[in-house]
Amino acid sequence: MTDIIYLDWNASAPLDPVVREAMLPWLGERFGNASSVHEHGRRARAAIEAARERVAAAAGALPGEVIFTSGGSEANNLFIKGVAASCKPGTVAVSAVEHPSVLEPARQLGRQGWRFSEIGVTGAGAIDETAWREALALRPAIVSVMSANNETGVVQNIAALAGEARAAGVYFHSDAVQVFGRLLWDFHSLGLTAATLSAHKIGGPLGAGALLLDKRVEPIPLIAGGGQERGLRAGTENVAALVGFGLAAERAVARRDAEARRLSALRDECEARLVVAGATVFAYGVARLPNTIYFAFTGIDGGALVDRLDRAGFACGSGSACSSTRPGASHVLRAMNVEPGLARGAVRMSMGRETRGGEIEAFIAVLVHSVSELKNLVAVSV
Amino acid sequence: MTDIIYLDWNASAPLDPVVREAMLPWLGERFGNASSVHEHGRRARAAIEAARERVAAAAGALPGEVIFTSGGSEANNLFIKGVAASCKPGTVAVSAVEHPSVLEPARQLGRQGWRFSEIGVTGAGAIDETAWREALALRPAIVSVMSANNETGVVQNIAALAGEARAAGVYFHSDAVQVFGRLLWDFHSLGLTAATLSAHKIGGPLGAGALLLDKRVEPIPLIAGGGQERGLRAGTENVAALVGFGLAAERAVARRDAEARRLSALRDECEARLVVAGATVFAYGVARLPNTIYFAFTGIDGGALVDRLDRAGFACGSGSACSSTRPGASHVLRAMNVEPGLARGAVRMSMGRETRGGEIEAFIAVLVHSVSELKNLVAVSV
Repeated sequence: MTDIIYLDWNASAPLDPVVREAMLPWLGERFGNASSVHEHGRRARAAIEAARERVAAAAGALPGEVIFTSGGSEANNLFIKGVAASCKPGTVAVSAVEHPSVLEPARQLGRQGWRFSEIGVTGAGAIDETAWREALALRPAIVSVMSANNETGVVQNIAALAGEARAAGVYFHSDAVQVFGRLLWDFHSLGLTAATLSAHKIGGPLGAGALLLDKRVEPIPLIAGGGQERGLRAGTENVAALVGFGLAAERAVARRDAEARRLSALRDECEARLVVAGATVFAYGVARLPNTIYFAFTGIDGGALVDRLDRAGFACGSGSACSSTRPGASHVLRAMNVEPGLARGAVRMSMGRETRGGEIEAFIAVLVHSVSELKNLVAVSV
Repeated sequence: MTDIIYLDWNASAPLDPVVREAMLPWLGERFGNASSVHEHGRRARAAIEAARERVAAAAGALPGEVIFTSGGSEANNLFIKGVAASCKPGTVAVSAVEHPSVLEPARQLGRQGWRFSEIGVTGAGAIDETAWREALALRPAIVSVMSANNETGVVQNIAALAGEARAAGVYFHSDAVQVFGRLLWDFHSLGLTAATLSAHKIGGPLGAGALLLDKRVEPIPLIAGGGQERGLRAGTENVAALVGFGLAAERAVARRDAEARRLSALRDECEARLVVAGATVFAYGVARLPNTIYFAFTGIDGGALVDRLDRAGFACGSGSACSSTRPGASHVLRAMNVEPGLARGAVRMSMGRETRGGEIEAFIAVLVHSVSELKNLVAVSV
């Protein structure tokens, strides 16, 4: 596997080796249930609280605002369903380009007496001003708009949206899984009610995430039971994963600005080459994550191209990995009103801390070759 | 920490070193999102499906009946809340000695239009016949009775209860977290609708569990989103933890019968010594887990005794670890109608694969000494 060039960091990032080292003792001689009162339990508890402080510091939140979960999907569900269960049915408004773990719980509410409202986006993937005004005019109880999109990488103007939501007395949540550790992002400065983080997108382990939550909000727990996480998330804490999350958050934020500069230079160079080769880059020219390029070649199937790249040793995504087992075009591109024929060609290339310039050079060479082969196949079969 | 003698296996078991070795590649060169279509993703997917087959085989279920979760608490909540959300409000009946992650979601339903019914137990901790008949007479939609209790170790006659529930057309769920891998337990033979398993009680890692579920039951997912686990549990799969769970299940079941014989001999010897020393052993003489002794000395506070044992190098539990941060006597002992003064003395000693006879000898010596010291303190302070 080591000779595969991994360009699917938005789906999952490899575990940072330093983070791994910090986790290993918790998979060995250190173990125990953090709720136990004896020495093993107290050490586990102390490690979890240290991890909470690290995540809080990295995200601009207070430790008491960090609710650990098993990952981003759980945190998104906890906010939307947990807050909904704590108040009378009203309107839940989420952007049309949200991750399925925001869209689906909001749709579930739509079948349980809530009004489900989707906030449309522009052709470039940014929240549409008119759609936003219309959504706020519905006086929603819950609004969720992601900080950066997992497919396009488009970064929303969360500070402005959160400010308007706050002025309207609306709970504003943002899925920050893709932006955290990649661009400056601060829970308090943005004025958010709640936000979702995930460890495995930033060099931490799978199985850890967090809901950052203003303490004045009191959701009903999704997983009720033993009283862990201030009664908001039951279950014996996954100490190793939380220790890894804390360190990964700290390290990702420490290297963030330098990495953003390095990767955006690689991205710009790669994008320019793709455009010359005839690709359409989605959300071209708007504020985006420094590591993500989402593109398509007219008439070339994205899945076929990803397969061919895979066989040549390059791991990319077609559409979102979280829904790549589902047929049909990306809901994000549909919301951006991208022509279906072009949307079917979508390939996502996302970089990370191990990505080097030479790999991108090699990627482009293989990509251009694969596209030309697939074009010939199409021509022959017509 | 290595010179601490760990006697709190019901709270959490140390990771089996062989399981750890199998997990490590998935915290290193093998990584990726199992929903990705490229080589990294496909390998992760294959590892998860192999783990699913192992868990299914160890538990007497089909692979398609295994829904992986982040742990036992989530699986309990998924069944109770997920099934409730899929049908009209009715009655949910659970035993009074259930784990909080069964009791709490059932109580949540009780505040949402459902009738919440608690099934009482005898003084020995077994389901009370009359209470059981009364609960079934309520024609509940959902019944949950644990296979073995985490505090007392009492094993319920699940085959008989499940048979009667099935005859009455009731969904019967059993939290099997404590019995799985310790005594013969088989999902199909018991005739269960659903059951909960946890990895970290059997030498697997924290962060993995499963709901075994008859495929004819279709709960609403607790964590909705990307469509993982047949659409019943969204979120990028924690591959390392699931790989560990699969192997731990296989290994725990393979050593189960020999371990049950070895530990029950240790338990019987230890119990006899405790009784001679003046202890009351809860649920004495009824069918119990081979590894668990739950006892108290009249007039001695359980927390104080656990503290003293801890300082002497023995890790035990006072009440259930999952609720040891909560004050008040154990709800299990309350349900068994144990006199409050005695219940406050409750200490749980639970053994596992690393426990040796010499350790139990040493434990009893220190325990008897600690009790005598605490008795003197009580005598002085009166």
